[in-house]
Amino acid sequence: DRPFVLLAGPCAMESRDHAIETADALTAMCRALGIGLIYKSSFDKANRTSIDAARGIGLDTALAVFAEIKERFGCPVVTDVHEATQCAAVAEVVDVLQIPAFLCRQTDLLVAAARTGRVVNVKKGQFLAPWDMKNVAAKLVAAGNDRVMLTERGASFGYNTLVSDMRALPVLAETGFPVVFDATHSVQQPGGQGTSSGGQREYVPVLARAAVAVGVAALFIETHEAPERAPSDGPNMVPLADMPALLAQLQAFDRLAKSPAASAA
Amino acid sequence: DRPFVLLAGPCAMESRDHAIETADALTAMCRALGIGLIYKSSFDKANRTSIDAARGIGLDTALAVFAEIKERFGCPVVTDVHEATQCAAVAEVVDVLQIPAFLCRQTDLLVAAARTGRVVNVKKGQFLAPWDMKNVAAKLVAAGNDRVMLTERGASFGYNTLVSDMRALPVLAETGFPVVFDATHSVQQPGGQGTSSGGQREYVPVLARAAVAVGVAALFIETHEAPERAPSDGPNMVPLADMPALLAQLQAFDRLAKSPAASAA
Amino acid sequence: DRPFVLLAGPCAMESRDHAIETADALTAMCRALGIGLIYKSSFDKANRTSIDAARGIGLDTALAVFAEIKERFGCPVVTDVHEATQCAAVAEVVDVLQIPAFLCRQTDLLVAAARTGRVVNVKKGQFLAPWDMKNVAAKLVAAGNDRVMLTERGASFGYNTLVSDMRALPVLAETGFPVVFDATHSVQQPGGQGTSSGGQREYVPVLARAAVAVGVAALFIETHEAPERAPSDGPNMVPLADMPALLAQLQAFDRLAKSPAASAA
Amino acid sequence: DRPFVLLAGPCAMESRDHAIETADALTAMCRALGIGLIYKSSFDKANRTSIDAARGIGLDTALAVFAEIKERFGCPVVTDVHEATQCAAVAEVVDVLQIPAFLCRQTDLLVAAARTGRVVNVKKGQFLAPWDMKNVAAKLVAAGNDRVMLTERGASFGYNTLVSDMRALPVLAETGFPVVFDATHSVQQPGGQGTSSGGQREYVPVLARAAVAVGVAALFIETHEAPERAPSDGPNMVPLADMPALLAQLQAFDRLAKSPAASAA
Repeated sequence: DRPFVLLAGPCAMESRDHAIETADALTAMCRALGIGLIYKSSFDKANRTSIDAARGIGLDTALAVFAEIKERFGCPVVTDVHEATQCAAVAEVVDVLQIPAFLCRQTDLLVAAARTGRVVNVKKGQFLAPWDMKNVAAKLVAAGNDRVMLTERGASFGYNTLVSDMRALPVLAETGFPVVFDATHSVQQPGGQGTSSGGQREYVPVLARAAVAVGVAALFIETHEAPERAPSDGPNMVPLADMPALLAQLQAFDRLAKSPAASAA
Repeated sequence: DRPFVLLAGPCAMESRDHAIETADALTAMCRALGIGLIYKSSFDKANRTSIDAARGIGLDTALAVFAEIKERFGCPVVTDVHEATQCAAVAEVVDVLQIPAFLCRQTDLLVAAARTGRVVNVKKGQFLAPWDMKNVAAKLVAAGNDRVMLTERGASFGYNTLVSDMRALPVLAETGFPVVFDATHSVQQPGGQGTSSGGQREYVPVLARAAVAVGVAALFIETHEAPERAPSDGPNMVPLADMPALLAQLQAFDRLAKSPAASAA
Repeated sequence: DRPFVLLAGPCAMESRDHAIETADALTAMCRALGIGLIYKSSFDKANRTSIDAARGIGLDTALAVFAEIKERFGCPVVTDVHEATQCAAVAEVVDVLQIPAFLCRQTDLLVAAARTGRVVNVKKGQFLAPWDMKNVAAKLVAAGNDRVMLTERGASFGYNTLVSDMRALPVLAETGFPVVFDATHSVQQPGGQGTSSGGQREYVPVLARAAVAVGVAALFIETHEAPERAPSDGPNMVPLADMPALLAQLQAFDRLAKSPAASAA
Repeated sequence: DRPFVLLAGPCAMESRDHAIETADALTAMCRALGIGLIYKSSFDKANRTSIDAARGIGLDTALAVFAEIKERFGCPVVTDVHEATQCAAVAEVVDVLQIPAFLCRQTDLLVAAARTGRVVNVKKGQFLAPWDMKNVAAKLVAAGNDRVMLTERGASFGYNTLVSDMRALPVLAETGFPVVFDATHSVQQPGGQGTSSGGQREYVPVLARAAVAVGVAALFIETHEAPERAPSDGPNMVPLADMPALLAQLQAFDRLAKSPAASAA
């Protein structure tokens, strides 16, 4: 029943300077609010809708930047891995290895991530029921790592749409592992713009409030100082300038959700 | 931004004595908490899964009981209507006419309910998108009645399952009409028990918390002192004894959701 | 294993002359192909998306036209009923009473339709699993009528979309009652045009072929000589001029599906 | 409009002898019917529900067996690849590289498969709309390979269930690439047995008939002489002994679907 931790940052790492500036802003606002931050960015967007979409800054460059962020701001970092062979190198710097939703059943990737000993955050596949994630977590535990986080990020609902089933949060929590709500990708409209995915940024606060009221260990929110210029997931990222008010609000719901009164019922 | 109103009662009116006892208990707990109550019960279960399922106490008997409840406990009452011809009689006593979800597109029923001048609460069909409800509300307004409430009660999600999309609440609110969240039927598993519908009572507090955090004008919760003995919707009704703690908790989330801090973001 | 029967006609009865002309064209093409025809039209569109949408010609006018069609062309007719009180009057002329999908669980309507002794064709609700329809059929049988037809017309799939699950056809057939595939409404996009429903006429032949190959007792196809001018369901009706080629093709699939070779496997 | 090709074999390669025996049986029955066969088996089940589930025979062993099958029976072979690094080795022997549905958006895997010059068969993700597959195909073409096949294998429909939307077949065909219908995995119930996936073998003929009637370039059907003993996908594999009658039936529907009469409409 500790306060929620925030996994946040721009979807893709764009440059060293952009990453440092965003981490600076996020650590400042989280310090002011007393929120634990895990800085997030991707070094590679490995499953873009279109082949022409930007891929990312690359592993080596990203690791150096992550190392600088950790040292300079003192916050842990999280990034996603896509192939088993990446895990060891990423784990030298990165504190939390994240398994993308599409890959949440790939046994080799899960085992390789688990064997690094780092925390592994697995996103629930859009095609999975929440109760199916206990099998995914069991793969990590069987590989010798019980430092697991499970992330809800929406379920397929017809075509080009996701729906967030709030019942998934307590179902995932039955595993005993911390549950993360990804408010950014839950409002994604996969493939919804023809050759890229759309998004409904306006519903990030709606779904995040709902999830925090139900009770989560962590929130995942991608943010950018100018989402319309972002190379990926722009339509569902929250403007950096809107984050302090949103976080303060979510913090109030979190405190209430974890107060003795709320847990009594 | 007024506190939520509660629409509550047993799914079906079972007898005069049972109704009076339940209304007594509900009005007492709502008075203690300062929550506005609209007492709910059905006089007829017109769309049961099976023909062998109990139907109800009948219109005339129910109206007399509703009248007694209104006089004795001073609270308004709500019940559902199924045919246009019932509306006028029901409206002589009942304050809020409710349109069942399956019937939310039946123009004659909507118009007849609207013409009584009573408040009309329309449940969103399990087969409708939230934005489609503006057309339903427009039918009522065109019939000369803008005292409309719109209720979210889950959307079809595969077979025998509903999912509650919390984005539906702000979408419905864009109509300008008060939005109700039905926490009882949202956890229904339609037809899920072969010849009757199942339910997941344990998720009523989960979905109700989420909805209140997002922001609603009213909550709809069916309750029974012994749900396992109830003639309908037992698996998703909340035991009457659990209601005070649940309501207190939801009230805290409602206050927070409607505080200046929460609406700032 | 008899050849499929065709339920066809314009969605709404527009006028006496339009109905006679369409019935003339349909009976001619069905006679040429040796296909049994049940002429279909609605006298009232009781659940339109918008209150401003046309409702229909009315019951009395329609019954006179249906009587004329029966006498003149010698074919049975089918129309949908919306309230229990309509059933007796409709049954004086109409051979098959059809229960709309939204109303497939309304016990009083089912019982009233059953008690006329006419064949009752129930459309499966968009919110129902195919195995739930055995309970619907049981309501008709309990009311003393086992002349039942069950129609598949798509299941809710996300928002504003239906999907046709071909497994539903054998599941419905397990009841022992004839199964109809409604190729017109299965391609409807409910509410998909804001204040009216859209449709994908181009997929009518696709889904109809699939259904006939799986095996059905009857096909339901709405048709109009100029669908773009039709008062309802224009986007999913098949142009009358396209019907002969479509029917010939479906007939070939039907013969194959019901040949000894095909049923052996 | 050539006759359908069959991709068939046991889900997993179990042993050299089992593979040879199954290939012998399949080539014999396909030769008798005049159906083109591409022998299928997996050397690794990389995304099993549970970590305790069997993985497979391994790449090197499998390649030797595939080579023997090709030489002995003269039929091409298909297998699935899971990591970019596997593609070159697999392509030395295997004629068709198959991309699993969960991995259909992984750019590196698609590009590596494409660069082998072999035919690449991509299974549509359960989380994708059919029109989104044009972007997937474009990734392969951009990598210099237009020998592409696209496979429909069901879309997520609520939890633990897939639905086959027959409209997907013509939508996929609009890309100009051959469309495969996977009748085995379309009847899978993902995770439906707690720690393994369930399946509904009885609907394989139903969906396969529907798909062939709509029109496909190829069918994918997994088969096993004793599915109940198979290490994976037993519940949805067709018994080998049932294949000749099923194939003969599907062949009749295929001939009709591709006859001038059927394509006229």
